[in-house]
Amino acid sequence: MRTMFGYGDIALFSGSGNPELAQEISDYLNEPLNDYDLIEFPNENLFIRLHGSVRGKDVYLLQSMGPPVHRNIMEMLIMIDCLKRDSVGRITAVFPYMAYARSDKKDQPRVPITARLVADMIEVAGADRYITIDLHAGQIQGFFSIPGDVLTAFHLLSDYFLAQPHENSVVATTDLGFAKKGRNFAVKLGVPLAFVEKRRVIDDRHAHAMQIIGDVQGKDVILVDDEVLTGSSIIEAAHILKKHGAQSLKLSFTHALLAPPAAKNLTAVDSITEIVTTNTLRIPPEKQHPKMTILSVAPLLGEVILRAHEGRSVGELFNE
Amino acid sequence: MRTMFGYGDIALFSGSGNPELAQEISDYLNEPLNDYDLIEFPNENLFIRLHGSVRGKDVYLLQSMGPPVHRNIMEMLIMIDCLKRDSVGRITAVFPYMAYARSDKKDQPRVPITARLVADMIEVAGADRYITIDLHAGQIQGFFSIPGDVLTAFHLLSDYFLAQPHENSVVATTDLGFAKKGRNFAVKLGVPLAFVEKRRVIDDRHAHAMQIIGDVQGKDVILVDDEVLTGSSIIEAAHILKKHGAQSLKLSFTHALLAPPAAKNLTAVDSITEIVTTNTLRIPPEKQHPKMTILSVAPLLGEVILRAHEGRSVGELFNE
Amino acid sequence: MRTMFGYGDIALFSGSGNPELAQEISDYLNEPLNDYDLIEFPNENLFIRLHGSVRGKDVYLLQSMGPPVHRNIMEMLIMIDCLKRDSVGRITAVFPYMAYARSDKKDQPRVPITARLVADMIEVAGADRYITIDLHAGQIQGFFSIPGDVLTAFHLLSDYFLAQPHENSVVATTDLGFAKKGRNFAVKLGVPLAFVEKRRVIDDRHAHAMQIIGDVQGKDVILVDDEVLTGSSIIEAAHILKKHGAQSLKLSFTHALLAPPAAKNLTAVDSITEIVTTNTLRIPPEKQHPKMTILSVAPLLGEVILRAHEGRSVGELFNE
Amino acid sequence: MRTMFGYGDIALFSGSGNPELAQEISDYLNEPLNDYDLIEFPNENLFIRLHGSVRGKDVYLLQSMGPPVHRNIMEMLIMIDCLKRDSVGRITAVFPYMAYARSDKKDQPRVPITARLVADMIEVAGADRYITIDLHAGQIQGFFSIPGDVLTAFHLLSDYFLAQPHENSVVATTDLGFAKKGRNFAVKLGVPLAFVEKRRVIDDRHAHAMQIIGDVQGKDVILVDDEVLTGSSIIEAAHILKKHGAQSLKLSFTHALLAPPAAKNLTAVDSITEIVTTNTLRIPPEKQHPKMTILSVAPLLGEVILRAHEGRSVGELFNE
Amino acid sequence: MRTMFGYGDIALFSGSGNPELAQEISDYLNEPLNDYDLIEFPNENLFIRLHGSVRGKDVYLLQSMGPPVHRNIMEMLIMIDCLKRDSVGRITAVFPYMAYARSDKKDQPRVPITARLVADMIEVAGADRYITIDLHAGQIQGFFSIPGDVLTAFHLLSDYFLAQPHENSVVATTDLGFAKKGRNFAVKLGVPLAFVEKRRVIDDRHAHAMQIIGDVQGKDVILVDDEVLTGSSIIEAAHILKKHGAQSLKLSFTHALLAPPAAKNLTAVDSITEIVTTNTLRIPPEKQHPKMTILSVAPLLGEVILRAHEGRSVGELFNE
Amino acid sequence: MRTMFGYGDIALFSGSGNPELAQEISDYLNEPLNDYDLIEFPNENLFIRLHGSVRGKDVYLLQSMGPPVHRNIMEMLIMIDCLKRDSVGRITAVFPYMAYARSDKKDQPRVPITARLVADMIEVAGADRYITIDLHAGQIQGFFSIPGDVLTAFHLLSDYFLAQPHENSVVATTDLGFAKKGRNFAVKLGVPLAFVEKRRVIDDRHAHAMQIIGDVQGKDVILVDDEVLTGSSIIEAAHILKKHGAQSLKLSFTHALLAPPAAKNLTAVDSITEIVTTNTLRIPPEKQHPKMTILSVAPLLGEVILRAHEGRSVGELFNE
Repeated sequence: MRTMFGYGDIALFSGSGNPELAQEISDYLNEPLNDYDLIEFPNENLFIRLHGSVRGKDVYLLQSMGPPVHRNIMEMLIMIDCLKRDSVGRITAVFPYMAYARSDKKDQPRVPITARLVADMIEVAGADRYITIDLHAGQIQGFFSIPGDVLTAFHLLSDYFLAQPHENSVVATTDLGFAKKGRNFAVKLGVPLAFVEKRRVIDDRHAHAMQIIGDVQGKDVILVDDEVLTGSSIIEAAHILKKHGAQSLKLSFTHALLAPPAAKNLTAVDSITEIVTTNTLRIPPEKQHPKMTILSVAPLLGEVILRAHEGRSVGELFNE
Repeated sequence: MRTMFGYGDIALFSGSGNPELAQEISDYLNEPLNDYDLIEFPNENLFIRLHGSVRGKDVYLLQSMGPPVHRNIMEMLIMIDCLKRDSVGRITAVFPYMAYARSDKKDQPRVPITARLVADMIEVAGADRYITIDLHAGQIQGFFSIPGDVLTAFHLLSDYFLAQPHENSVVATTDLGFAKKGRNFAVKLGVPLAFVEKRRVIDDRHAHAMQIIGDVQGKDVILVDDEVLTGSSIIEAAHILKKHGAQSLKLSFTHALLAPPAAKNLTAVDSITEIVTTNTLRIPPEKQHPKMTILSVAPLLGEVILRAHEGRSVGELFNE
Repeated sequence: MRTMFGYGDIALFSGSGNPELAQEISDYLNEPLNDYDLIEFPNENLFIRLHGSVRGKDVYLLQSMGPPVHRNIMEMLIMIDCLKRDSVGRITAVFPYMAYARSDKKDQPRVPITARLVADMIEVAGADRYITIDLHAGQIQGFFSIPGDVLTAFHLLSDYFLAQPHENSVVATTDLGFAKKGRNFAVKLGVPLAFVEKRRVIDDRHAHAMQIIGDVQGKDVILVDDEVLTGSSIIEAAHILKKHGAQSLKLSFTHALLAPPAAKNLTAVDSITEIVTTNTLRIPPEKQHPKMTILSVAPLLGEVILRAHEGRSVGELFNE
Repeated sequence: MRTMFGYGDIALFSGSGNPELAQEISDYLNEPLNDYDLIEFPNENLFIRLHGSVRGKDVYLLQSMGPPVHRNIMEMLIMIDCLKRDSVGRITAVFPYMAYARSDKKDQPRVPITARLVADMIEVAGADRYITIDLHAGQIQGFFSIPGDVLTAFHLLSDYFLAQPHENSVVATTDLGFAKKGRNFAVKLGVPLAFVEKRRVIDDRHAHAMQIIGDVQGKDVILVDDEVLTGSSIIEAAHILKKHGAQSLKLSFTHALLAPPAAKNLTAVDSITEIVTTNTLRIPPEKQHPKMTILSVAPLLGEVILRAHEGRSVGELFNE
Repeated sequence: MRTMFGYGDIALFSGSGNPELAQEISDYLNEPLNDYDLIEFPNENLFIRLHGSVRGKDVYLLQSMGPPVHRNIMEMLIMIDCLKRDSVGRITAVFPYMAYARSDKKDQPRVPITARLVADMIEVAGADRYITIDLHAGQIQGFFSIPGDVLTAFHLLSDYFLAQPHENSVVATTDLGFAKKGRNFAVKLGVPLAFVEKRRVIDDRHAHAMQIIGDVQGKDVILVDDEVLTGSSIIEAAHILKKHGAQSLKLSFTHALLAPPAAKNLTAVDSITEIVTTNTLRIPPEKQHPKMTILSVAPLLGEVILRAHEGRSVGELFNE
Repeated sequence: MRTMFGYGDIALFSGSGNPELAQEISDYLNEPLNDYDLIEFPNENLFIRLHGSVRGKDVYLLQSMGPPVHRNIMEMLIMIDCLKRDSVGRITAVFPYMAYARSDKKDQPRVPITARLVADMIEVAGADRYITIDLHAGQIQGFFSIPGDVLTAFHLLSDYFLAQPHENSVVATTDLGFAKKGRNFAVKLGVPLAFVEKRRVIDDRHAHAMQIIGDVQGKDVILVDDEVLTGSSIIEAAHILKKHGAQSLKLSFTHALLAPPAAKNLTAVDSITEIVTTNTLRIPPEKQHPKMTILSVAPLLGEVILRAHEGRSVGELFNE
């Protein structure tokens, strides 16, 4: 491996959030994960002690912001402080999924913009760069003043569907905020686009009605989104799509949050025939199911880390 | 006018970008615009000299970021520096339209995020707060670490249509990035939603085709967006909507950029019967037309300035 | 209540960490705790929405950094961001116990200084001031560049013992890092000082021996510390003190971390006759015991908040 | 070309302000100017897209702050943001002339210090270093906290006059703020010094009178300054110098602002026999004239860029 | 005294640098100087302890940067830290003379810009504003990003000469960097201007020659400068002025650095008939002399402090 | 010497505080000290001019913070500014003793935390890293946000005693704040621990009494501390220790502040048989005495500089 000008050798560290993905990246790069002690005291306080010096090194710190979310964020920040104070050459925080990314704007008064707070915390801890995948909104990149590589699983996911028969498909989305990215998916597959729109029923605070905008009659619907949490909207959408004559339903999304019992409920819906997602978040065995296809982002992250370390272009290969 | 704790009297200043709007706000508040010298040297460098002390005052600096864009931005920043160095109590930059707001993410490699740069410039110059209307993306509020009031002309515009017969209407948008806000408009009017989708034609870099998603047959279409620049997409959309049986077309958007000959071209389309917009940007007489209805944001801005000065709630009245 | 120059009315907010203490402070000040929504999404992400405007107010945000530690820290930071973006006048973060305060120096290579990180996080989120009690090391105050009031429960605790018969007492400590503060306690009571010293046994990594430095024969020992976590050192100390002829043992410490089963184990030691501590951390009923005396810090915090709001001296009353 | 430790290869970029000078520097260094897209939207907003990755590179961004001044400044800042976000190794902003340098102090109340604002804008955008020539005041270097190379065209200009017969010359200046630099010029040539002093006439706000301090009788006067904008003072000075017996007049200045019709008017004065200046600012053909000698700063800038890139001393060769 | 919005009462503190001037200001304002302990340990380290709370107050810290320079600077910075950490409302550092102001630019390679460093130190310590008099260069105000009031003793000094017979005077300066300010002096008095120019003799590193530019024959010369340190240039100038027929010589300067034996040497020159200066720096009795007139800046500083505290205009009265 | 990635060659500079130690370090590294001009003007202002370019170099600036303390601090800061503005690659400030380290907390109201101020000053001047020895409190490392190597003379001192007969020794300390470090010393030597406790006598502000906690009868006492200033506590302790039967007394401390007449007084005490210290501070000949053993920290600092420059681990060898 060539060495980037200005930094020492590469050094990989993995937080405790997603060790399987970290191992895959380590294997891809043929670089070991560095050992360190991580102690949790009985008062929950974490303590970190590196086993060897990182002076001058080009460190990539792999951490998930999945559950336990706050502990994982804090673990990442403490690790950054620890690396900085050991006079590391450069720290790149690699978090394939960014927590709090949906708290990215004040769409009502008197709410926080927590994603900016998280970005500031990462910067104040001492990170020099960051790498992440499919931010909930591209604008979040502007919350950072340090540079970063915001990658996408779009190619991974869309290529998967492109390799299957898809002539009869229609791409749909249940979130109008994802309409533009849904369009890109439809364009890539060369198929039409439809929307599932949800409106609250007047005079009933808790009821709402769903409508289909566009044509799904007799179609194989591919429902796309960036993340799935409870899956309840999708299950409702599955019913309304079926009622409008959709033939089958596949799901495609990057971040498998899948709060229990989302995985169980989704796979229980007959019309949902396949769930395609990635391992940006750890998907434990109990959430997995034969209907679920998990594509690995490890080669993507590994290649980007390699290129970042060697000072080669990332954009030419991976951005949407 | 009550005085906000911690600051002196209110003081209004207007940049040279939109003096008419500034005057309307001044009238609303019954507070004069403060005089100052603005000199442009033959080398284009601007020079500012306040006529009186602003020590301790609660200043609202009203400036447009419309054309000449870069001069207006610089004028605003110089003014902020000048006010800061005169020991002002608090500076609120009031720019109803934020330039460069569309440069808010890296949707391709090797491009800037200029909206963050503009936010940083406003902060480094010394502004304490800001007030603006309908940012292109709500996330841009997170580009600022200073607090701000991001208002919306949504109520102004939707109330206007609500006051007209609209039972036969359908709300549409040509920009899928605006789909969610289009939905809010449709919900407010209680009418259906449709989309105009534009795709590039394969094997022809410059050609593209438009499609309608949703039903517009026999409908009065209200095309909504946050800003209109050249109007060319709208004109295309007008033709395709007509072809799909739309009965009439009205436009609704907040920021009337209307680069010549946008105003002329849009008003020349027969099926476009009304263009409803606001004066966040100065609309000179030569761009105006009988088909155009310009709603003033002055009462909105004036009321928010008053409440900000007096320390009363802004959110309870104006946010979307 | 007088109003501090430069800020609006006082406004109290309580995080979810120690609502009982917050209520006591609210009662002391005769000021209600402000309502707000705190939502935890199924992906653990927290969301906050204030019920009313805090524009210009002098906010005191009461939050515990006790368990769940990381969630409570994040909740506090999000709340600060939310308050800041609602144009609050001033935010004082009130955390009676500061988590991670023991991670305050690099006493071995390649470890973090997490207490500085926590201080930086509080500052970057937007706090203007902070109030806390008995920092593990006084130097941590220097980790903040914002001003703060670092109070002490020393008077509360020592006055309690002073009011009891104490002529036959000796003050001891098991932590030599607390020797100086132990001395202050002994001076206040006018009694001698002793130390329990613990050394690792050579050639056995896990064994250690304890020694008494000073004289405890026939004495009533008051063992003092800033916090008690597992209590295991104290239980060992109780045995060695008894072996050296101590007549009885009382404990005095500010922060009752008391990780289970610390409370149960400590109260089970016969020679420990009383445990005197405070409510800087929430002590749930299952940790309480008749041997335990919990002194409330609410009047101390309440009085300091009042004085800070009114711009009166804090130091003249409460510092050690 | 050797590579500076810590950075990758050199990469030159030219803004649109002075492409001819950029090309000369490129030729001097035998390094191509990198291509990129610069798009100006109809709303004047600029958009930049680099053609290739600059990851880790040592970039020199050549931009003029000449007219259109504000557009050129903004273009430079956007470019810096773009380069930074593409993870460049180091960005050196090279602006041979710094706009707003005359707004460098508050010599009256309630005015800005725009030069500091410009320096802050360059830093907040992300520049690591800067290179410029003949700042209006040397102190402006202190407005930057990033390091920079502030070069001078003094040697270029004075060597030019030294190579001509100059025994009968006297150096003069019309701006007493330039007196010290005028002295250096006179010392270099070994000739006397004189001053043209301008005073406002009492009781007439717009009239003023000029006087000569020192002896110019029968002399060839070399009038020196850092920049010439309208030339009106010089033309007045030319008349008064002639009246005091000066034999001929030559001009020497670094920055040829020459707002129209300065070039025409100056060259029309008979007693002005030569105008010696540099190309720190683009001098379009219509401003050029046979009386005008334009010395190129390209070798100076090229050599300094080379030495900065290779980590060799700049000071030993070029500073005044 | 009215109270400035946003801050509590005024509080004056005096460092140990110039207690006489501080007392005069205190008398002018009829506000006492606050007491505090200043301890110098045997290792020279200083320690400060305020006698009472400054919470919320509007503090003016009066300190000289005269000798012992570094101790006085450090004392001022420690005081600022102390005030900040006691939750002061606002700190204005008042240093009538700014040390290191002559180190304000890199006029040769590889030298510092210490004046910027001093400005940064004052800001990082926590000052909110500053007040000073006659900075060596006006540009130094741009070294600060906090606002300040840079006053001038110009009116004090020139009014003094205006009140004397001055029709036969000529204003001169020995420092060409002071030429412009010398001109202002001459204009105020309505008298001509002359210069004393000093050039190094070629081939002799230590010798130099002086020349007079302008006419001093039979004139009463007023030699003006911002500060006088050793006086050696002035003594040389006195000789050459006399040789050129000057009738008498008076000195006028703001900052009386007067390193021994400057005062003695200057007053010993017969042709120097009066030395007019101010008390921005403490002038101990042993430096005073009947030829010396010391004008007090206390009313100027006192009035500006009063106006700053009350939020009234400073510029309208005092700036040059 | 290998070159650290990212920086050029090593370059050593020595301030004027401790030239002998700097020379020893230079000898250890076989690297010359770089020449530069240091001028002190008659107004005490310092001026620095480097003799050659440091562009890109990895500079280690060796400076003592011993007396004259404030001049030495300022000299160090000016030097850092000078190096930064000459585009140095990296600046490491090496100050073996940190002044003001005892002003590290607010143990009473209304006092400063000067150690944090000093840390901020070093950072704002532009240092990238720092190296120091035995900070008064380990927490001070957290006052810096830049990384640093905080070394210890513990091994140097304790190894010295280990090499002597020490079976009959007891380690004692007079400062309870040093109790924990005293314990480490005792553990290293495998000997017991004792304390000298000093209490103020009630009703007499200036009197105090000393007591011994632990057993010193017939023992050779080694009194340990981090620094010795006046020595008066030690002399008192010597008497009380003798009274309690101590056989002999040796002193061990890192920083020999030794304000006159400390050295004379200490060596005059008969029971004090040896004083072991280091040269972190310059010990002039007049303070030296046959009873005094001065261990050099030059090899420690030299080796750490070497490893820092080459990017090798420091922690594995030197930390406590």
